[in-house]
Amino acid sequence: MKLPWRPGYDLTLDKIIKSALQYNPEGEIVYRTRAAIERYNYSTAFKRMNSLAAALSSLGVREGDRVATLDWNTHWHYETYFAVPMMGAVLHTVNVRLAPYEVEYIMNHAEDKVAIVHADFLKLVEYAAPRVKSLEHVIVVDADSAPEKLGNAKVHLYEDLIKSYRESYEWPELSENTVAAMCYTSGTTGLPKGAYYTHRQMVIHALSTGLFISSSPLIGLNSAATVLHIVPMFHAFAWSLPYVTTLIGVKQVYPNRLIPSVLLELIAGEKVTHTAGVPTILYMLLTDPSSVKYDLRGLKFLNGGSAIPEGLAELARRRGIEVIVGYGLTETGPVLTLASPPAKLLTSPELGKLTLRTGWPIFLVELRVVDSEGKPMPRDGRTMGEIVARSPWLISEYYKDPAKTEELWRGGWLNTGDIAVWFEDGSILIMDRAKDMIKSGGEWISSVRLEDAISTHPGIAQVAVIAAKSRKWGERPAAFIVPKPEWKGKITLDEIRRHLEENYVAKGLIPRWWLPDKVVEVESLPLTSVGKIAKRVLREQYKDLEVD
Amino acid sequence: MKLPWRPGYDLTLDKIIKSALQYNPEGEIVYRTRAAIERYNYSTAFKRMNSLAAALSSLGVREGDRVATLDWNTHWHYETYFAVPMMGAVLHTVNVRLAPYEVEYIMNHAEDKVAIVHADFLKLVEYAAPRVKSLEHVIVVDADSAPEKLGNAKVHLYEDLIKSYRESYEWPELSENTVAAMCYTSGTTGLPKGAYYTHRQMVIHALSTGLFISSSPLIGLNSAATVLHIVPMFHAFAWSLPYVTTLIGVKQVYPNRLIPSVLLELIAGEKVTHTAGVPTILYMLLTDPSSVKYDLRGLKFLNGGSAIPEGLAELARRRGIEVIVGYGLTETGPVLTLASPPAKLLTSPELGKLTLRTGWPIFLVELRVVDSEGKPMPRDGRTMGEIVARSPWLISEYYKDPAKTEELWRGGWLNTGDIAVWFEDGSILIMDRAKDMIKSGGEWISSVRLEDAISTHPGIAQVAVIAAKSRKWGERPAAFIVPKPEWKGKITLDEIRRHLEENYVAKGLIPRWWLPDKVVEVESLPLTSVGKIAKRVLREQYKDLEVD
Repeated sequence: MKLPWRPGYDLTLDKIIKSALQYNPEGEIVYRTRAAIERYNYSTAFKRMNSLAAALSSLGVREGDRVATLDWNTHWHYETYFAVPMMGAVLHTVNVRLAPYEVEYIMNHAEDKVAIVHADFLKLVEYAAPRVKSLEHVIVVDADSAPEKLGNAKVHLYEDLIKSYRESYEWPELSENTVAAMCYTSGTTGLPKGAYYTHRQMVIHALSTGLFISSSPLIGLNSAATVLHIVPMFHAFAWSLPYVTTLIGVKQVYPNRLIPSVLLELIAGEKVTHTAGVPTILYMLLTDPSSVKYDLRGLKFLNGGSAIPEGLAELARRRGIEVIVGYGLTETGPVLTLASPPAKLLTSPELGKLTLRTGWPIFLVELRVVDSEGKPMPRDGRTMGEIVARSPWLISEYYKDPAKTEELWRGGWLNTGDIAVWFEDGSILIMDRAKDMIKSGGEWISSVRLEDAISTHPGIAQVAVIAAKSRKWGERPAAFIVPKPEWKGKITLDEIRRHLEENYVAKGLIPRWWLPDKVVEVESLPLTSVGKIAKRVLREQYKDLEVD
Repeated sequence: MKLPWRPGYDLTLDKIIKSALQYNPEGEIVYRTRAAIERYNYSTAFKRMNSLAAALSSLGVREGDRVATLDWNTHWHYETYFAVPMMGAVLHTVNVRLAPYEVEYIMNHAEDKVAIVHADFLKLVEYAAPRVKSLEHVIVVDADSAPEKLGNAKVHLYEDLIKSYRESYEWPELSENTVAAMCYTSGTTGLPKGAYYTHRQMVIHALSTGLFISSSPLIGLNSAATVLHIVPMFHAFAWSLPYVTTLIGVKQVYPNRLIPSVLLELIAGEKVTHTAGVPTILYMLLTDPSSVKYDLRGLKFLNGGSAIPEGLAELARRRGIEVIVGYGLTETGPVLTLASPPAKLLTSPELGKLTLRTGWPIFLVELRVVDSEGKPMPRDGRTMGEIVARSPWLISEYYKDPAKTEELWRGGWLNTGDIAVWFEDGSILIMDRAKDMIKSGGEWISSVRLEDAISTHPGIAQVAVIAAKSRKWGERPAAFIVPKPEWKGKITLDEIRRHLEENYVAKGLIPRWWLPDKVVEVESLPLTSVGKIAKRVLREQYKDLEVD
């Protein structure tokens, strides 16, 4: 039985936009520019993708060339998400929250030839352009004017540029193993590492993620949904949601730079049914001064990036928002798990807690919690181990980094570096990043579990727990808290210990020896480039902190 | 950028059952044996698959060997659906409705080594076994005893056989391009042709079909659904529904031989939410004497195999059943389209008609309606052309038949041989099989459209329209009708013409020259092996029928 290749066989990203064009060509895409909120449809978006590809081609972009983006969640970004890979070039989404020297490093490492840049990041590119020798062209979006040159790169305005090209392009027939896109992990330690994905990987990821969130009774994303893209598009391809939503042909909303009051207005005005983001943005949506004006009932919020504190989830629920946790890494495509339980648990009295677990592996993901020898841990909800995974869409390697690749794939599984417990029902709960665990008297304490518990105190706005040195125990937990305004100066170590003692220790939810030995009140907590609390920075600032 | 292969990368069928085992291992599978209605779960099913693979292996089944099934919709069939392909062997589902000489032909053509046979088909295998030289073993299901030998093949009882093997098996790590399964088209003309599918094709088909039916607001198959398998598992892998439902981990019901009263009991007793089948079975469910006892409201019925007459759809709706049409061929995996319209049409007053269209191409299917030169026809809802398609899961070739393969893939598209019109909204409506069209005065008349219209007459139970010879026009439509009991002998040609004139011609729905020139009342209509009306047989019987 030989298997002749047939046209239409390969899993390439053009098939995703073609699905929308066939099924719902007039499906709406709403987007915000600095001037106004506007809207077009899949059909028009595709015409503009054609013009963009023709323009890039005339600028010399060839198959395999890297095209960088430094952009917010705009329709321009959306157009590059398809046009660049569909030409056979590689979409490189640059994390605009990185330090300038890191941006310079990754653009050089990726050898970007063209950069598509939002006006807000011209200053960043002004720094990087002269230092990135491969860069030939800069294309500016959301701007009426721009300098003529940046470094040696010629500068164009996106709208002026594509205007001169026809709305048709001879898209090449690509192999599904062509590299489609890359991005760099924000790198909490050391230099950013390059992750890249083939067309095939991105299509299978979109299919499987789409199937899980569509077939989940709790999430229920169907073709009549409206999705607001809050996850930054420079971060793990916005969890692939621009691809998933296009595949299904739903109405999408691109809010440009994330401004909480504007997001709230879009949610209400466009009748958004689903969105996704890190806990920080959810917190902002709930506490923005304008928030109370809006009815948020029925909104589904997929939480990722870091664990959601129980207190925040409760706050969201009181507004009628359903929070479902998801989990993954840049290296894993990104989605590995979603906390939408199987049918029989939907009636569980614990449902509200189950949706805050790290979740169940989505379809086609094989996941385990293992010890240092790779042996699966018992599914007892207590014993901690590292999460390892296999799936058709996990990165095969870090770009030009065989040593780190070796480490990542040690033992034939992708090693996430995240520590979790495994439950009998098949779900997992992350206790911590391996490096964020606190080792006290030879035993592990989960900083995330402690943060969760502390966050339920009525006076706490934000909290982070790190290790303080202890001569006796090696390490002991120290909590850094940002109190709510009316609670400033009032939350002592004793108060936190009392809260934990009564609500957690007494109920057997955490052991007494986990109680923190130190509470430090701070004005604010340092954030990473993707809006998570930067524990690495906190640890650095307080590296000499000591308790008895 | 080299792409090292990583474990877990390939799209193989084991990943589908592994999804269920991870997400919902206790998910229920209900099945009927000749003795009772019983139930087990995914976890137990998988253990039995392991034993089955071990047993088959000990009988000498090796990678690439063909294992035939002649079975109803049983849990035994379900187990072979996974165990056989997962061992690297090829699952060959034999259409048990074929004539014995056809069964002999395809089993020889496929070179089946083992056959897994329902007790009901022992007689058929008694005929075939001595004539199929490659056949070494017959494994009998749903029986307490069996002969010792059939031809040269040794006979085993399934339950006795697997009992002696452990519930673990060393499944091989297969390439996704391994052939997983095959079946033969029932062949309305000439001998059956072999269609085969790789693991990859079956997994992508399941993902895409699953995503479409999950994200459809009308179908809404989610993980809390219960699916009754009515589509025969010997027919195009039951439209892949056993794979789709396993992937999502839903509750499944396997009814064994299809007995309308039993199906109704299962629908009510197991709270079935979704099923699928040909119009004939829907008709039986609605007209079975026991039917009125059951509340069928909310049931979703995916109709395929042939177009559903308007009258039948109306009857179903009056019972609260939502009918959504689907379409595809054995050669196309099978699903190509489903009549679940995009969001903006969900509020259309025509929604009831839209769901009876042949439908919209599902995700990753590229579909066109073309003329004989392959040029796309206008999307005007009137101009007829042939449906051609591309997709990752269409068969690459007919097994050992290069000439037919050439014809199938003429012009780089899979040629379906079905004639349809194309609407501006992207949907299609099949007018006829190319060979069922009636050519009158050089113009086409759709026999299917006429059947639809005639079926709305209150006295009609079933109808088929074929061409009668006409000296003047070449061909003219003749209608063969089965009246409802109380209407026997009462439906004349004039009555049919009056009905069509008033309800269709006067409203501009069909042209007057389409009105049939002949009506023949018959006791029953001949059916094909898959329960469709066998127009080929009818044409054969009435090949000399002539009108003026």
